[in-house]
Amino acid sequence: MASKRSAKAGGLIMGGGFPVSIQTMWKEPLAPGQLDAAARRIEGLAALGCDILRFAVPDLEAAKTLGLLAARVSMPLVADIHFDWRIALACLDEPIAKIRLNPGNIGARWKVEEVTKKARDKGVPIRIGVNAGSLPEDLRDREDRAGAVVEAALREVAAFEDLGFTDILVSMKASDVEETIAVNRAFAARYDYPLHIGVTEAGPLIPGVVKNTAALVPLLKEGIGDTLRVSLSADMESEVVAGREILAAAGAGRAGVTVVSCPRCARAGFDTHAFSARWSSRLYGLKKNVTVAIMGCVVNGPGEARHADLGITGAGDKVIIFKNGQIARTIRPEEADTVFEEELSAFE
Amino acid sequence: MASKRSAKAGGLIMGGGFPVSIQTMWKEPLAPGQLDAAARRIEGLAALGCDILRFAVPDLEAAKTLGLLAARVSMPLVADIHFDWRIALACLDEPIAKIRLNPGNIGARWKVEEVTKKARDKGVPIRIGVNAGSLPEDLRDREDRAGAVVEAALREVAAFEDLGFTDILVSMKASDVEETIAVNRAFAARYDYPLHIGVTEAGPLIPGVVKNTAALVPLLKEGIGDTLRVSLSADMESEVVAGREILAAAGAGRAGVTVVSCPRCARAGFDTHAFSARWSSRLYGLKKNVTVAIMGCVVNGPGEARHADLGITGAGDKVIIFKNGQIARTIRPEEADTVFEEELSAFE
Repeated sequence: MASKRSAKAGGLIMGGGFPVSIQTMWKEPLAPGQLDAAARRIEGLAALGCDILRFAVPDLEAAKTLGLLAARVSMPLVADIHFDWRIALACLDEPIAKIRLNPGNIGARWKVEEVTKKARDKGVPIRIGVNAGSLPEDLRDREDRAGAVVEAALREVAAFEDLGFTDILVSMKASDVEETIAVNRAFAARYDYPLHIGVTEAGPLIPGVVKNTAALVPLLKEGIGDTLRVSLSADMESEVVAGREILAAAGAGRAGVTVVSCPRCARAGFDTHAFSARWSSRLYGLKKNVTVAIMGCVVNGPGEARHADLGITGAGDKVIIFKNGQIARTIRPEEADTVFEEELSAFE
Repeated sequence: MASKRSAKAGGLIMGGGFPVSIQTMWKEPLAPGQLDAAARRIEGLAALGCDILRFAVPDLEAAKTLGLLAARVSMPLVADIHFDWRIALACLDEPIAKIRLNPGNIGARWKVEEVTKKARDKGVPIRIGVNAGSLPEDLRDREDRAGAVVEAALREVAAFEDLGFTDILVSMKASDVEETIAVNRAFAARYDYPLHIGVTEAGPLIPGVVKNTAALVPLLKEGIGDTLRVSLSADMESEVVAGREILAAAGAGRAGVTVVSCPRCARAGFDTHAFSARWSSRLYGLKKNVTVAIMGCVVNGPGEARHADLGITGAGDKVIIFKNGQIARTIRPEEADTVFEEELSAFE
């Protein structure tokens, strides 16, 4: 089951049966002078499918800068805060849509209470995030690591519930696939707070995409997970594209393109790698369900392109454009981009 | 269940309960003058985990060149042949370990029989490969696409069995995740030929890795699949690393490194992306089970690095090296590579 409770960050609802949202995290320092560039990059992330974006907020100045950015973009922005409750209070003076903070990391109950009071006043939800890699001392060496992670999350949840604050989301992350699945299943079986799912510190691009897919697809198919982040040692755009593809593979995807393209071999008369790379952001920006086939040769190309809404395939020294299973045009390779552009615009 | 039958390609056994092997396909033309470079690249692929490597063989000259290459590398090489049985016969005169060819693609029964006779004499298995995108005319528009793919494979199998040739492997590929799972499950439930599994034309790097992981991990967990290829519109090395990570995620992996690294955020005092990228081929060449953590900051770094055999993490303006959960050394960032090299060599 998807979580019954929900949390609202700006215009985005997580949980309550709403579509699973995709998030990523800003990876560079955010200087006040860079807000134009940041806003443009956020537009690009939105086009790729990003719904909500998190920023580390290490000090009061960063809270101010993030507030300025939040005021000029429509995407809900999240402030990630460690150690200092005053930063959380400062963020709550800004148009920030969500906070990520653990009460156990803030310390004294009165400090946490100041934060929850203000968050409630402002209608801002807080995500609790527990990492298997940084558990409290007494849970650290428990044999049952998954149980320890859930227990750590429950302690944080209890600290908020004791203060009457329940506008929360929970994430429990591990760097291991099976542990990620186990902790989220265990939590979802007993509690109905919205879940933010992901594999943490998943490694470089390929291992990270494999681990996140292996962990998140089974969870999503079981209806577990209300928002997701694919953590990669790679750029934000890759995290968003991976999130989007994982949702699609789990049958929980939104409208958008499916690109079918061949791996290239010595048969290829048409450079599918270069063509795919050149067209990738344009294709991923499509908001309709479209299958586009980019194929290299006559062995598999025409067959696979037949099932696509739009297909382009090499065939000897020619390039063939397919539409809805029919050959639409036979062109020269140097015309490929221009003609593809024309055909693609029909789907935009 | 893993297949009971097996097929032997050079020194590699696929099926029969042997470990699932990883393959990729050469993506450029192979010129006779490039054999030194090709042999070096194959060594690199072997270090990453590649067990067997396929080449398109479009003509008789290519068969000769592939033979020359096969004679100088220890990795079993596979000849991928379409349309012309004489190319298959020529490959069987060379030290080529396996052939990929469909009888239905060759034509007359006597031509196929010449191939199977010679393959039997030489002890060379043949893989049948069916793609959902290029089914025979009469199966093409069947409502039950998965059933049509299995039916197409069975026709090819029957053509070989009629000639008494059963040293075969089978692949049935689709570009859709659920279809890939369905066709392989259906086949494995009724037949025990070794299965080569993969998603075909899976698209660019990230979508391709997601689709292959989503399809292959469940199959491998059910014991279906004896050899795999991750088809990507990306380089061969990426296909091999993805295959390796998929096996690991399915619990079917061999010894090797697990890299835990953080996605970097504005907190990071240490550039984990650049460090990971710099060390990646060295790390993936490790043949022992080692967990290496490459972390940026003090929030999660030391915690996660504690569970790793070797860890490096930023901490303020210092870098800390962990070994087996203990701080081993505190160093300056500019010493990171030299010290990491020293520590890593203990695991080689």
